[in-house]
Amino acid sequence: MKKIRAAVVGYGNIGKFVIESLITSPDFEIAGIVRRNTSIIPDAIKQYKVVSDIDQLEDVDVAILCTPTREVPKYAKEYLAKGINTVDSFDIHTSIADLITELEPIAKQHNTTAIVSAGWDPGSDSIVRTLMQAAAPKGITYTNFGPGMSMGHSVAARSKDGVKNALSMTIPLGTGIHRRMVYIELEDSYDFNEVAKSIKEDPYFASDETHVIKVDSVDEVRDMGHGVNMVRKGVSGMTQNQRLEFNMSINNPALTAQILVGVARASFKQAPGAYTMIDIPVINLLPGERIDLIKHLV
Amino acid sequence: MKKIRAAVVGYGNIGKFVIESLITSPDFEIAGIVRRNTSIIPDAIKQYKVVSDIDQLEDVDVAILCTPTREVPKYAKEYLAKGINTVDSFDIHTSIADLITELEPIAKQHNTTAIVSAGWDPGSDSIVRTLMQAAAPKGITYTNFGPGMSMGHSVAARSKDGVKNALSMTIPLGTGIHRRMVYIELEDSYDFNEVAKSIKEDPYFASDETHVIKVDSVDEVRDMGHGVNMVRKGVSGMTQNQRLEFNMSINNPALTAQILVGVARASFKQAPGAYTMIDIPVINLLPGERIDLIKHLV
Repeated sequence: MKKIRAAVVGYGNIGKFVIESLITSPDFEIAGIVRRNTSIIPDAIKQYKVVSDIDQLEDVDVAILCTPTREVPKYAKEYLAKGINTVDSFDIHTSIADLITELEPIAKQHNTTAIVSAGWDPGSDSIVRTLMQAAAPKGITYTNFGPGMSMGHSVAARSKDGVKNALSMTIPLGTGIHRRMVYIELEDSYDFNEVAKSIKEDPYFASDETHVIKVDSVDEVRDMGHGVNMVRKGVSGMTQNQRLEFNMSINNPALTAQILVGVARASFKQAPGAYTMIDIPVINLLPGERIDLIKHLV
Repeated sequence: MKKIRAAVVGYGNIGKFVIESLITSPDFEIAGIVRRNTSIIPDAIKQYKVVSDIDQLEDVDVAILCTPTREVPKYAKEYLAKGINTVDSFDIHTSIADLITELEPIAKQHNTTAIVSAGWDPGSDSIVRTLMQAAAPKGITYTNFGPGMSMGHSVAARSKDGVKNALSMTIPLGTGIHRRMVYIELEDSYDFNEVAKSIKEDPYFASDETHVIKVDSVDEVRDMGHGVNMVRKGVSGMTQNQRLEFNMSINNPALTAQILVGVARASFKQAPGAYTMIDIPVINLLPGERIDLIKHLV
């Protein structure tokens, strides 16, 4: 059987775990890795073709975008126009619909498929949220994140004067309310209280309960575990008080990477166009024959 | 906007709740109810057309099959051939793949769509099971049912000599192991111990821890609440110990009914053929515009 040839675009945290997921997926092979810097190649990927331009790779079927989220639209548009499917974990919730609208005509014109925002939230959580709403259409779903590191909040804290390094942990307090625990390394000659105040006033933190804590080494308190607790209490038909709950405790980039590989596979089952995870059947995330999967999973 | 005209086939527990879900769904109208017995019409459905043959109803788009599970294949084949989509909650797990294979050519030939086994298990649980496997492909998913009533086990207990009425409750013990608590009304002149023995020896109960308890009235201990706890610990790529969990505590027929209405809606978005819930995108279970749903749910 012909394997799906995937290019891994970006070699940060997600890219590293995507390579592990591809190695363990029987139906994929790694066409190569696209990085800006090809002068120094880490030992772990010396066995692969590492290039700065995807055109230097052969027969790429799908590009798995592991770039910073803001660079996703640019790469997706470029690759879709080259006839390559793309998948990404674009995570700016308020811009996902725009990204779909932007990529859809390009994908259709070039007979390719894009699956966007395919990580865990947005991503697999989105499927569960949609399913919960279908099961009990009236009601509220609360998505409680953590405990785990927030990239966006960590970057915001790190941007403040006097902060050498920072880690922002998200702590779920229920009903979608979160506490922020911000661990910082302080630059010499800065006043901790003033730095802490500037973090708490940042729009990223201003509306949440935020605690800033000085540590000697941010690296020593960092782990990549994360989690979610989604709960919905709602109404099925005229029956109140239906309760649904979804929990995860996971390694964050490892899960994102595995989902990306699943949607890379699924992209070949969709008509040309741009999709989110709620637009695609879950069966297509898995390798194997349809009837066998139905026998084992339905 | 033209509403979807649904026929409700069967007026038992599920049928009653399907009518409630249809009433609360803005995009549906009830074309009528198909029942074997049309001589006595319960007050609750006097406002609808109640017929013994679906041909007596006008412009039926979809038939929601609320018959006993073993009658589903017969009705589905008949209605699909008439040009009517069908949805059902057929729940004999080992026969679902066969049902798909049987209905597929009929649906395609008549340009109709069947969505089978669309309740909560099989059904919405199947979507979560598939998603969990995609998130952590290596590992084990345990589906723990209950506490709640098992229809199949209750019928099996009721079939024994000396049993006037029976209710079998499923109690989850974890890792997919279940205890059966069987409440029976005993016929006069029967020996309780012998009846209990015959229940415990039935294939439905033989491999589970089973307790038989004599009660004066089965009706007084019956409730329609049910639940599930699905857990998976698995491997994403090369990362062990990823933990995922899904829990529900729900009114059983109310949830099944709501899911049936969701897939009835979704059936009009699929190409002709036969599908399970894992074959269809979850977004199609909901009413409304795609981009709006993406904005709110992804």
